[in-house]
Amino acid sequence: MSHKILVTGAGGFVGPYLIRELQKNAEHEIFASIYSATSDIAGLLPGDHVIEGDLTDAKYCQDLVKRSSPDVIYHLAALSDVKESEGAALHVLTANTEIQYNMLEAVKSIAPLARFVAVCSANVYGLVGGSEVPINESQPLRPLNPYAVSKLTQEFLTLQYHLSYGLNTVILRPFNHTGVGQTENFVIPALVRQFVQIKRGEQAAQIEIGNTASIRDFTDVRDMVRAYILSSTKCESGQVYNIGSGKGSSIAQIIELLQDISGIKVEVLTSKERVRHSDVPVLIADNTKFVTATSWLPEVKFHETLSSVYNSMVNN
Amino acid sequence: MSHKILVTGAGGFVGPYLIRELQKNAEHEIFASIYSATSDIAGLLPGDHVIEGDLTDAKYCQDLVKRSSPDVIYHLAALSDVKESEGAALHVLTANTEIQYNMLEAVKSIAPLARFVAVCSANVYGLVGGSEVPINESQPLRPLNPYAVSKLTQEFLTLQYHLSYGLNTVILRPFNHTGVGQTENFVIPALVRQFVQIKRGEQAAQIEIGNTASIRDFTDVRDMVRAYILSSTKCESGQVYNIGSGKGSSIAQIIELLQDISGIKVEVLTSKERVRHSDVPVLIADNTKFVTATSWLPEVKFHETLSSVYNSMVNN
Repeated sequence: MSHKILVTGAGGFVGPYLIRELQKNAEHEIFASIYSATSDIAGLLPGDHVIEGDLTDAKYCQDLVKRSSPDVIYHLAALSDVKESEGAALHVLTANTEIQYNMLEAVKSIAPLARFVAVCSANVYGLVGGSEVPINESQPLRPLNPYAVSKLTQEFLTLQYHLSYGLNTVILRPFNHTGVGQTENFVIPALVRQFVQIKRGEQAAQIEIGNTASIRDFTDVRDMVRAYILSSTKCESGQVYNIGSGKGSSIAQIIELLQDISGIKVEVLTSKERVRHSDVPVLIADNTKFVTATSWLPEVKFHETLSSVYNSMVNN
Repeated sequence: MSHKILVTGAGGFVGPYLIRELQKNAEHEIFASIYSATSDIAGLLPGDHVIEGDLTDAKYCQDLVKRSSPDVIYHLAALSDVKESEGAALHVLTANTEIQYNMLEAVKSIAPLARFVAVCSANVYGLVGGSEVPINESQPLRPLNPYAVSKLTQEFLTLQYHLSYGLNTVILRPFNHTGVGQTENFVIPALVRQFVQIKRGEQAAQIEIGNTASIRDFTDVRDMVRAYILSSTKCESGQVYNIGSGKGSSIAQIIELLQDISGIKVEVLTSKERVRHSDVPVLIADNTKFVTATSWLPEVKFHETLSSVYNSMVNN
């Protein structure tokens, strides 16, 4: 059966991976909303299926949903830089609220039966105690930065539209994910960049990092977009799902793996500048609810993810 | 010990009650922030202690906290009309976010040790199943209107400032409260108004109401402000507390009581106009956490609360 699909925030890191995965089904007609024409997704889709505009503009959202008339919406768009959110916190809070409100209103009035996949963030869990890991969906929410608060506003507004108007929503809380093309504001590309610079003799064999003890649950972006697509048919309306591998890696372990991949031995230095004001010590997903609903399991090994990021960067 | 106290949203229904209760302690120096000079609290405080401005203006918040230099802040200000929030939802969402952000930023930079009592709302619980009553603080949050979502944003931002910056916050979730002076947008004054009109022969002995089966937990506003004041010294920083009597009354029961008080027998009509799009069937507080911390117990009987509202309205 043919499906019309709308992807918002398609110009970000995840968007092109999601579109390529969706294109494996030739029946799909895919529309992409991008914020700025500098995005390189144009080559993936016919020109008239790439729509440019600002989701904080209600009229743009209405036009977007009318034009794409979607059966499924993958709503990826949000201001997402955690570090930036501490400086420009109010802008992150209000823009992410506006984006969500405008999209939900457009869906409610124009495509009320569409499945609305709201891609949120495991960052909403924030402060997590050792005994609370792995984290399931009923874990108390203790956000540690304004970005996480803005994602909670997006979640609760989405839930409210499900409860009040019957919208067919699913809320996803992806844990960390990475891959080729992620910006160097994120920890793995930032680390890999340093290995590449060492390889090229552009810096001493020293790695500057905030906190090597931080533990995160990393999923390859290719596995993550498969999870998003499974959620569009397999998850229950109105529900919230963690997506993550269920395994944790410390920054120190990632550095070990990158030493192995690059063949470079490094000294690790702690940089105060790189420590976030409100860093979360441990984030590991309990993915039972999502795996039970979808039978999803990550396929790409972490070593392979890191290798692909390293190889891409060292060759560019 | 002398205390400087700041009350925001002091021009609303609860503000004057809170100020009068605080004034029972002659050591308190009280500052009030009001949105508009039409408020009648001027008579309660010296003119230079009543400060007029808009809390969505960051500079006003900074000036307010500088000028009052508070030990305790009762932050009552918010756009609070649930019905209005469905029409003007985005404004309620962004304004309540801005108000909270600006106040927290001002407290963080100017009065970082002040106790910040964030008065939120039991409306955040939203959809509650019969087996979930009475509602304790770990009840799932299922907001049914944008106002409730905006109060969640306020809560989580307040919690984030506690976790990230150590602000001395307490979050209160008051259940329904009423008393003389509440606007007729709220259910009890709206009902009483109809009884008064019947008494005066201005309408037939018929009461129009949305849903007589709705059950709410009503506290007299005078008991509620005593609870707020107790929270300033007795509650634990970073924690959330329900405030409510723990007893539920249906609208039908309230009509019974008002028939008794007014000596008028009425016929009850259901009005579609008065049914909210997303009405919550039952809200009754489990107040154990708050009562354990503060030994608060409501003193005013519900019959007396209703009598005072009726007598005030019938004599004006």
